[in-house]
Amino acid sequence: MSTKQQQDNLDNVVWHQHKIGKQQRAKAKQQKPCVLWFTGLSGSGKSTIANLLEQKLFELSKQSYLLDGDNIRHGLCGDLGFSDRDRVENIRRISELCKLFVDSGEIVLAAFISPFRTDRAFARSLLGDGEFVEVFVDAPLAVCEERDPKGLYKKARRGEIHKFTGIDSDYQVPYGPEITIDTAKYNPQECVEQILNYLTENGFLK
Amino acid sequence: MSTKQQQDNLDNVVWHQHKIGKQQRAKAKQQKPCVLWFTGLSGSGKSTIANLLEQKLFELSKQSYLLDGDNIRHGLCGDLGFSDRDRVENIRRISELCKLFVDSGEIVLAAFISPFRTDRAFARSLLGDGEFVEVFVDAPLAVCEERDPKGLYKKARRGEIHKFTGIDSDYQVPYGPEITIDTAKYNPQECVEQILNYLTENGFLK
Repeated sequence: MSTKQQQDNLDNVVWHQHKIGKQQRAKAKQQKPCVLWFTGLSGSGKSTIANLLEQKLFELSKQSYLLDGDNIRHGLCGDLGFSDRDRVENIRRISELCKLFVDSGEIVLAAFISPFRTDRAFARSLLGDGEFVEVFVDAPLAVCEERDPKGLYKKARRGEIHKFTGIDSDYQVPYGPEITIDTAKYNPQECVEQILNYLTENGFLK
Repeated sequence: MSTKQQQDNLDNVVWHQHKIGKQQRAKAKQQKPCVLWFTGLSGSGKSTIANLLEQKLFELSKQSYLLDGDNIRHGLCGDLGFSDRDRVENIRRISELCKLFVDSGEIVLAAFISPFRTDRAFARSLLGDGEFVEVFVDAPLAVCEERDPKGLYKKARRGEIHKFTGIDSDYQVPYGPEITIDTAKYNPQECVEQILNYLTENGFLK
């Protein structure tokens, strides 16, 4: 085959190329892809709820992927610190990552404190209508501080951590999140049920 | 329920928590997740082959996701330019992204010129044994330049693009890639067959 023919061949393939898109992947996975964006104070229960939800979704043969500090801060965002600028860049990259995973057809569980409304609004802006589900994991600061699962509040109170959300940095409560779960009132299983009900009622788990 | 009981409850859930891991996700998707890392000159056929392969995998009910300039350069790496430093950071982020998608159980098709051995070695280093499949898309520079699907070689020859791979920047041929496909000799369908054979023989499509 001549180079000219090769070129024609390539052109043809490009021309007839049917890229596999989000709709087809979603159909194959039998679900409506979305991001469940868990936001809340440290100790509010984001990771606990997200992990339990991941198990439940798996049992339902749904395909989800959990993004949290564990798999992000050491890898994709390993070059970032905790300055204001780096925090914004951290959330920007996570948002773009969520967009790609949604495009791949997955249900993404993103569990980050994400204290600022503008950052969450940015994540929402990248996604299509109905694809961004903000889950406000609500628990009073006093409850989170008593739980203090990683001992971070104690460190913050001793001044060993600075700009710690809830102590010397703001947490901006969401306006009109799709879901609010109250982890001071309900146990994790009940919270997960509440989210699953939302997903079912809104056609994400067809 | 008291806050103390809530805490116990959360502790219990954390304790009994069975995180869903890569193995389980791969099993559910009925495939062995990996990265097919397509490397080669501009115009060698990386995107054409990767797109065609994506279609074939979809027809086989395999779950893959294609990463290329289209969905990376405008999003996750939209803040990066083309300086040496930015090119390295670009490949670093793509590598970390591949790692996350493999962790989610997908077969990732990554199509980037990625001209430097150190960058490809970095991507490989992030992944487990057998998870990184380097696909050298081989075509002589003269053939790629004649194809010139985006008119970039012409621009480079006129000096309108600098540090263009193959013209005034090196392309480092892979040492021992898992697969070499010769797009000057075989048509895209044949190239895709060759890759599918490799994937079948090595248990990726079980």
